[in-house]
Amino acid sequence: MPETIDRVRIAILGASGYTGAELVRMLARHPAADLRVLTAERQAGKPLSDVFPHLGYLKMPDLVKVDQVDWSEIDFVFCGLPHGTTQEIIAALPHTLRIVDLSADFRLADAATYAEWYGHEHRAVELQREAVYGLTEFNRQGVRAARLVANPGCYPTATLIPLLPLLLDGLIESEDIIVDAKSGVSGAGRDAKQQNLFCEVSEGMHAYGVGHHRHMPEMEQELSLAAGKPVTMAFTPHLIPMNRGEFVTTYVRLAGGNTADDLRAALAARFENEPFVQVLGAGVVPHTKHVRGSNQIHISVFPDRLKGRAIVLSVIDNLVKGASGQAIQNMNVMLGLIETMGLEQAPLFP
Amino acid sequence: MPETIDRVRIAILGASGYTGAELVRMLARHPAADLRVLTAERQAGKPLSDVFPHLGYLKMPDLVKVDQVDWSEIDFVFCGLPHGTTQEIIAALPHTLRIVDLSADFRLADAATYAEWYGHEHRAVELQREAVYGLTEFNRQGVRAARLVANPGCYPTATLIPLLPLLLDGLIESEDIIVDAKSGVSGAGRDAKQQNLFCEVSEGMHAYGVGHHRHMPEMEQELSLAAGKPVTMAFTPHLIPMNRGEFVTTYVRLAGGNTADDLRAALAARFENEPFVQVLGAGVVPHTKHVRGSNQIHISVFPDRLKGRAIVLSVIDNLVKGASGQAIQNMNVMLGLIETMGLEQAPLFP
Amino acid sequence: MPETIDRVRIAILGASGYTGAELVRMLARHPAADLRVLTAERQAGKPLSDVFPHLGYLKMPDLVKVDQVDWSEIDFVFCGLPHGTTQEIIAALPHTLRIVDLSADFRLADAATYAEWYGHEHRAVELQREAVYGLTEFNRQGVRAARLVANPGCYPTATLIPLLPLLLDGLIESEDIIVDAKSGVSGAGRDAKQQNLFCEVSEGMHAYGVGHHRHMPEMEQELSLAAGKPVTMAFTPHLIPMNRGEFVTTYVRLAGGNTADDLRAALAARFENEPFVQVLGAGVVPHTKHVRGSNQIHISVFPDRLKGRAIVLSVIDNLVKGASGQAIQNMNVMLGLIETMGLEQAPLFP
Amino acid sequence: MPETIDRVRIAILGASGYTGAELVRMLARHPAADLRVLTAERQAGKPLSDVFPHLGYLKMPDLVKVDQVDWSEIDFVFCGLPHGTTQEIIAALPHTLRIVDLSADFRLADAATYAEWYGHEHRAVELQREAVYGLTEFNRQGVRAARLVANPGCYPTATLIPLLPLLLDGLIESEDIIVDAKSGVSGAGRDAKQQNLFCEVSEGMHAYGVGHHRHMPEMEQELSLAAGKPVTMAFTPHLIPMNRGEFVTTYVRLAGGNTADDLRAALAARFENEPFVQVLGAGVVPHTKHVRGSNQIHISVFPDRLKGRAIVLSVIDNLVKGASGQAIQNMNVMLGLIETMGLEQAPLFP
Repeated sequence: MPETIDRVRIAILGASGYTGAELVRMLARHPAADLRVLTAERQAGKPLSDVFPHLGYLKMPDLVKVDQVDWSEIDFVFCGLPHGTTQEIIAALPHTLRIVDLSADFRLADAATYAEWYGHEHRAVELQREAVYGLTEFNRQGVRAARLVANPGCYPTATLIPLLPLLLDGLIESEDIIVDAKSGVSGAGRDAKQQNLFCEVSEGMHAYGVGHHRHMPEMEQELSLAAGKPVTMAFTPHLIPMNRGEFVTTYVRLAGGNTADDLRAALAARFENEPFVQVLGAGVVPHTKHVRGSNQIHISVFPDRLKGRAIVLSVIDNLVKGASGQAIQNMNVMLGLIETMGLEQAPLFP
Repeated sequence: MPETIDRVRIAILGASGYTGAELVRMLARHPAADLRVLTAERQAGKPLSDVFPHLGYLKMPDLVKVDQVDWSEIDFVFCGLPHGTTQEIIAALPHTLRIVDLSADFRLADAATYAEWYGHEHRAVELQREAVYGLTEFNRQGVRAARLVANPGCYPTATLIPLLPLLLDGLIESEDIIVDAKSGVSGAGRDAKQQNLFCEVSEGMHAYGVGHHRHMPEMEQELSLAAGKPVTMAFTPHLIPMNRGEFVTTYVRLAGGNTADDLRAALAARFENEPFVQVLGAGVVPHTKHVRGSNQIHISVFPDRLKGRAIVLSVIDNLVKGASGQAIQNMNVMLGLIETMGLEQAPLFP
Repeated sequence: MPETIDRVRIAILGASGYTGAELVRMLARHPAADLRVLTAERQAGKPLSDVFPHLGYLKMPDLVKVDQVDWSEIDFVFCGLPHGTTQEIIAALPHTLRIVDLSADFRLADAATYAEWYGHEHRAVELQREAVYGLTEFNRQGVRAARLVANPGCYPTATLIPLLPLLLDGLIESEDIIVDAKSGVSGAGRDAKQQNLFCEVSEGMHAYGVGHHRHMPEMEQELSLAAGKPVTMAFTPHLIPMNRGEFVTTYVRLAGGNTADDLRAALAARFENEPFVQVLGAGVVPHTKHVRGSNQIHISVFPDRLKGRAIVLSVIDNLVKGASGQAIQNMNVMLGLIETMGLEQAPLFP
Repeated sequence: MPETIDRVRIAILGASGYTGAELVRMLARHPAADLRVLTAERQAGKPLSDVFPHLGYLKMPDLVKVDQVDWSEIDFVFCGLPHGTTQEIIAALPHTLRIVDLSADFRLADAATYAEWYGHEHRAVELQREAVYGLTEFNRQGVRAARLVANPGCYPTATLIPLLPLLLDGLIESEDIIVDAKSGVSGAGRDAKQQNLFCEVSEGMHAYGVGHHRHMPEMEQELSLAAGKPVTMAFTPHLIPMNRGEFVTTYVRLAGGNTADDLRAALAARFENEPFVQVLGAGVVPHTKHVRGSNQIHISVFPDRLKGRAIVLSVIDNLVKGASGQAIQNMNVMLGLIETMGLEQAPLFP
């Protein structure tokens, strides 16, 4: 990186959560990034090392409140705030800023769907209309031009990347898509809740949000666009005793005499030049540990014992490709940088 | 337990594996059991504490080879040997012995199906015919009269207990049954394999045996019997970083206008007096940790977002209800003892 | 257990914590126990299954507040309340009740030491004087006669059981006792604290309370009594990513030419008839997993490479022998029951 | 990195173990490294992705046998072979190669000590004499000039970095140094051993090698050099259920009226400009999770309750600063590169 390039001046809103920490981890080593501002309302005034000792040696700015930020010194914002709060804070930011929002607030394009799933009208409808859904591999043009990118949820990312091409190419039916998903605990965030204590979570597993998880409408929205008609799906998330990682097992119905091999070949062709997408060979099962800490997604397709069906497997690190990594990938696209910049770190195994 | 009752003299064949250890743990406290013989070919001659230090204080007999056993001193045998070996060893035992076999060798009733899945003809076809499938809650009469009980596999146990009544009562369709199962690592046994090392397994998860796991024909056999017609199913097992526990998520198609509530009510009625089966209330998700170390199964039913479908959740401890616990339950039935004897220990949480 | 024996009517105060759950788990199967009352202030009115679903099938009484209890129906109390609260609540109980208190409130006999470590005067000094320290193996006579037993802390239990005989017999010096202890996370309780979240605790470890943990004065009190002079010790606890289990590594200076073998032999002789204490053979290392879920303690002694020193290793399950199991052991002694009653369950491995 | 710089052509001998995988992970992103050869005797002929799927997308060379390597194409060797094998293989390499050896074979300078601890005479005594001990922060001059660097063990690295300056400056006594160490499981390597299975290791902990671990003489050698007189120490390693991380608790006797604060200040001054060494403030406890995946060491010093003593805490990632990271750090020094090159990745938390 020549010294003469201007680095983009970045603020991270909500830097005290796990996705905030991941943004710092990767942006601190990003050659075009200049981390200027980290906000955290309750922890404002503290050094970052107080909330994340592992980042202490990086000499980052201290935590401040959002209303203490001098926006004239900032070019780009990552917003990792809780749902609800986000809408109003982003609406109040100067319009010169470009933003990747990691919350769910701008992922649903339809105002009625939003209201149905979140129980209240959207409080920044214009922004909702403006926001671009940032599943990078499928919308580079939109992301490049966007001012506000809605970064996809972790489950949608792992689920949609293999499914969208299959629907777009008519290789699978859009009915009876059954998604059985498994996630590490970091997806639940850093808030002190009894249900996420080590003693409650380790050495056991359970489902949650059965039949009504909020990532459903986001997935159905994108699947419907790809299928060209409304898609309803089954989706069951499970909590697995591991920090990171998401494993998605999708049961699909084959269209028009296609086989699992056809699906695999189509995905391999579609993603051949994608730096972050690996389509595994026949018979190779993905493992969440093989992508941990990286922005990679691994995909595999298997024939089902049920005639006319196939099983699609996909794994990501929920905090990287499922959140902060994809957010940086989107920033790179928005700024015309090399898309892999700052995201080259290989997976950490074991 | 009055002193005057004769205790049944028991041999455990294959006592150096995890299911062997579990049999010892529970039988050592079983008031009608007298553990006389423990075999382990490679470890013969050693005290049990050498292979299982946690059982050392129980003063059990030392490990011996199978051919060292004086069968005249034994009434009852638990056989926990690997597949294949089992057939010949059981065939060679005196016919006065009653046996619960924990291997897969006698679970399939059909010789052709066995040959198809195991790649060779069964070597004890008469015994295969004689053996009774020991899913206790569904076959008490058969088990009571049996000389040889084939103890069900862990996945079949967790899957069949909720599904069989639903099929028998015609509440669900027998087509498109999709079983997504998750198991702790102890199901893989105690053999030293790289893939089961802590560093390979912890902090990650993966599927295995996708589309061709050997528990499939066992489940299809019992589902077909219940449905009264051949049933084919989808089944994907996953390995979860925990010692024990099995979580089964089953996606079913509702028959004749039934709802998830109808299914739950039917199961609650069916299992009302079963000491080891708990049907959870509407909206309550089971957790593997809530049955750990016990012979319990917890079952829950949820409506699916896909119209006309429901999601059935079930959890067991794979080493107890999924293996050694159910084996003892079968022994109790075979001997006319109280069915819960020796199996009363409550789950260990956390 | 003949039917004619009156079962003791028991109340557990503070039944919504992990030690409360463990008391229920074991007392529900205790042939002389009749669990009548479970209190939990914030959860009062709920069934036990709401806070501990794994105990739901045991048909226990619903949770109530302490001030709702009709004490005339209770014979025996286990008190598992937080420090501070305990003193006043126990002081207010009818004097006809016999009590095992699992908190730290009555463990220190000296009022000044209490005030120094807890920052305030004791609020029930008479009870403090009356309370008997319940390290069962060393004080059966005192416990039997006691009305109020102070159940030892988990670290003191694991540390003192091997050290007390060595000091009493003059086999080790009382200077320079260095205790490096490691505990599972359940010792930290069930309160929702960020530091005990799965994502903070798993896949890592750290020390805590370095140089000033509150179990120190309790250990020094008992070591001093055994040595016949004031003992000061080094003690460093560490938090290990496991639910249960405590491993204590103690570095001691040998007295009068004794060797590690002498120490091991002395401990083996001392504990020969103790049902819950196992002294392992030369070269055998204890493992926390070998006592999990049981009331056992395993002890081992090794020669140190440093001349004139030895290393003593001991392991317990912090929730059983380190808390609820020892509490029930004390109850058994207080009531003249067989000491192992209700505590026979073997360890759960793996 | 300008394109014109010649990249160093590297061979990794023993690339199928965890340290091999870590070398690949970091060297694949090292701007001056050109990974040309990966050897693995039993896996020769396979792509790297067969043994480490997480590295598959990096397009590394296939695995070969050592005797298939064309050494004329190699400048630099990392040797990660088992003890014993190493001596003869390195002795047979062309002397033009520069080497960092990660085994224990060249760490002990004294032939007699080697023979005592390893049970046989060293088979490459001249190389043993030539080898330079590569604890980078303490021997940059030696490392820079060396042809063969013996990379320190993980325990010695974590233990010596804080202790050497304290001994060199006379701040602590060299007698009675007691090191209680705790390590993640990856230190045990990738060989399939029952004792390292998930079900044996998780949810429990134990000590091992009590009183006779082979890292002892290595530590005593370096401590003796620093103290200027022979040092004997106590050392007890423990196995902790986590993949990576090492926590060392060292109990030291203060010299000449010094305090824990004096020790901390001395260490802070000594390491002020070291990029990989962080001395934490008073009262701050290190956590292995805060260095995971990075080449960092965190150090902290606490007063002991025992008069005249202090407690030194230190943490590293055993596979990085304790093995492959320090090996690359040594390579950087040997080649005159920036010492942090390829080692900048921040820790992965959670």
